[in-house]
Amino acid sequence: MDIKKEAQILKLTSPKLAAQTEEVRNRALKAAADALIANKEDIINANKEDMDAAEKSGLAAPTLKRLKFDEGKLNDVVKGIMDLIELPDPLRKIQLKRELDEGLTLYRETCPIGVIGVIFEARPDALVQISSLCIKSGNCVILKGGSEALKTNRILFQTIYKAVVDAGIPEGCMLQLEARDEIKELLSCHEYVDLIIPRGSNSFVQYIMENTKIPVMGHADGICHVYVDKDADIDKAVKIVVDSKTQYVAVCNAVETLLVHKDIAEKFMPVLYKALKEKNVEVRATEDIRKIIDCDTVSEEDYKTEYLDYIISVKTVENVEEAVDHINRYGSHHTDSIVTENDETAEYFMQMTDSANVYRNCSTRFADGYRYGFGAEVGISTGKLHARGPVGLEGLVTYKYKLYGDGHIVADYAEGRKSFNFKDLQ
Amino acid sequence: MDIKKEAQILKLTSPKLAAQTEEVRNRALKAAADALIANKEDIINANKEDMDAAEKSGLAAPTLKRLKFDEGKLNDVVKGIMDLIELPDPLRKIQLKRELDEGLTLYRETCPIGVIGVIFEARPDALVQISSLCIKSGNCVILKGGSEALKTNRILFQTIYKAVVDAGIPEGCMLQLEARDEIKELLSCHEYVDLIIPRGSNSFVQYIMENTKIPVMGHADGICHVYVDKDADIDKAVKIVVDSKTQYVAVCNAVETLLVHKDIAEKFMPVLYKALKEKNVEVRATEDIRKIIDCDTVSEEDYKTEYLDYIISVKTVENVEEAVDHINRYGSHHTDSIVTENDETAEYFMQMTDSANVYRNCSTRFADGYRYGFGAEVGISTGKLHARGPVGLEGLVTYKYKLYGDGHIVADYAEGRKSFNFKDLQ
Repeated sequence: MDIKKEAQILKLTSPKLAAQTEEVRNRALKAAADALIANKEDIINANKEDMDAAEKSGLAAPTLKRLKFDEGKLNDVVKGIMDLIELPDPLRKIQLKRELDEGLTLYRETCPIGVIGVIFEARPDALVQISSLCIKSGNCVILKGGSEALKTNRILFQTIYKAVVDAGIPEGCMLQLEARDEIKELLSCHEYVDLIIPRGSNSFVQYIMENTKIPVMGHADGICHVYVDKDADIDKAVKIVVDSKTQYVAVCNAVETLLVHKDIAEKFMPVLYKALKEKNVEVRATEDIRKIIDCDTVSEEDYKTEYLDYIISVKTVENVEEAVDHINRYGSHHTDSIVTENDETAEYFMQMTDSANVYRNCSTRFADGYRYGFGAEVGISTGKLHARGPVGLEGLVTYKYKLYGDGHIVADYAEGRKSFNFKDLQ
Repeated sequence: MDIKKEAQILKLTSPKLAAQTEEVRNRALKAAADALIANKEDIINANKEDMDAAEKSGLAAPTLKRLKFDEGKLNDVVKGIMDLIELPDPLRKIQLKRELDEGLTLYRETCPIGVIGVIFEARPDALVQISSLCIKSGNCVILKGGSEALKTNRILFQTIYKAVVDAGIPEGCMLQLEARDEIKELLSCHEYVDLIIPRGSNSFVQYIMENTKIPVMGHADGICHVYVDKDADIDKAVKIVVDSKTQYVAVCNAVETLLVHKDIAEKFMPVLYKALKEKNVEVRATEDIRKIIDCDTVSEEDYKTEYLDYIISVKTVENVEEAVDHINRYGSHHTDSIVTENDETAEYFMQMTDSANVYRNCSTRFADGYRYGFGAEVGISTGKLHARGPVGLEGLVTYKYKLYGDGHIVADYAEGRKSFNFKDLQ
């Protein structure tokens, strides 16, 4: 397949897809949901083939779990599509309507980004989520999923693509890549692809960021922190740290470093330690903590490490200021939480911590598009430009300025014959 | 100067600047305006030195005009600052307030981007505009202006910096670079600089984009179009094309290519040709146009060229569809205008043209932050991520998610003991 040529087709299709009404886009989503149900048997059989191959090749149990696409998962993604249909249309929202002068009116209106390339892990539900988010937001999409899910992804893609095109969405709005070496070609399509969203390991995302001129949205590291303040409720703190660390260790919003106010360490750490031990979490801590509990020594390198495992670093701090400085220095600006009953301390933390998601008295694991009520997400962004945090429909649109005049020229204003008369109309 | 070390200071200062109240930021802007007036004489004298040196080195007249900073220009920038003070605060706007479940409330709140590096041409008023926009939006800023304005920029920077720090803005919030080789160092500061905004020639902006890992906002080319439809009012069309081409030729929003519907060419082109000749504009056109007026032949290369000069390419098209295809293919997604009295044709153009600014019946020269009522702009963006079109205060902020809980953990939701109950509170 000539990826450049195919990407160019998507680029040419993108204004046509952008022009589809909300009704057509929602009808297409409904058709995709129906088609997934109608093709249930074939989809599940294709997944069984992928699962068999993956088991034979000795894939780890958590990966197998994500790869599995049974009737329950199929029902979940279909429900996800139905929820998405109910969400308000992100397109053609007038963000600004301003009369610049008599007969000269400026609009700022949301529109799709254009062509989006998404590279994602071996989770077939991700393919359905991403493509339905792109159809709802009027974006053409290039999908490259993990190779372990090859057969499942192929049938899912074909099912969705046929359904949406039959429902009136323009042909050439979706493209599936299957070979790993096609990623490199995709990265060179900066003329035709407006945005790349990579999901996967740090090193993979880093590789993508360093090897393309196309803007990249996402995050490489997920070094998240919980800071337990001297005014923390110890019960809450224990629950929050255990959940942040162990509810799902292999994800970007799991906590990696715990910061503990020195005045609460002696009371808090033994209780926490017991709870972490029950979950088989290894603790690495500063010397003052090691006088309280029995654990290994933490190093500077630990503070920069995303374990994605049952390991946690622990460091004492003098105060909330030191906690924030540590987070802003070592963190990845992803998700950080403070546990405290003190409003003033909490507000300092919420204001000064330079992260996409800052929390008080809750688990870092809440950083997720579904949990934020966005319906679904294409990923989580730690960049500060455009969408930040979980990226749902709103993050998939941009806007354009539309100006309506009646022969208006700039010379009249530059030479003083006319002057602007700004008036917001909404 | 060790730029990395200095940039790190700005990075550490940025949460402190972000925490300043609207009152402090506006008071600092007022102090800057007052200080500029108080130092008027020294500023104008410094500019005279720059002007003398520039004249001796044989700088072109338009560049000299931009370099000049006299009492009139000083009054303009002071008025600009006073207007900026009146604009609403872009920070701490709650964009989303949603109860996820009882006691668990999500906010999305605007906040500054952080540290912004701006590299701009030899226009001292740009230094004042950019630094005041950054103070208003709570961003630390690194400024590198054109070397021809060295002395003017130096005194302007010192005046503003002293005034804002005396007014309570944290020290270390602004940095000025003076040597050209410092740009390269700045581009390597991806750990400390959140955004680069380059202004200048295509090749310069291209160089910046290709030589940094820091996100870049701006535009390289400005290949703008006017499409004169068969249903155009010929008087309006002539006025709009002449203004778009000649009101200021050396700028990104001047028109470079004119597209003319074949059915109106014979009537329209002779009138336009006469008007363009009066302004000494050279016309390069397709063969069918050359049968109507006396001009050179246009080439494919012309369609890709930003002349920034008294030259215009002219091409006939069959219909609005062909015009839009040409623009989406050869344009730089900056600003494009249709002249027509036909609403349906206009709407097709406004919807399908994939540009930051799309216009009906007015000059492309309106694409400008001041003319949009934004007070001022740091630049114009043709990127689709984050700010698009003229970038004012709103383009200089991002947002963060704040989540307030009371010991909430994800395991309760994942394991079915609790369920989300989304409720928008605003």
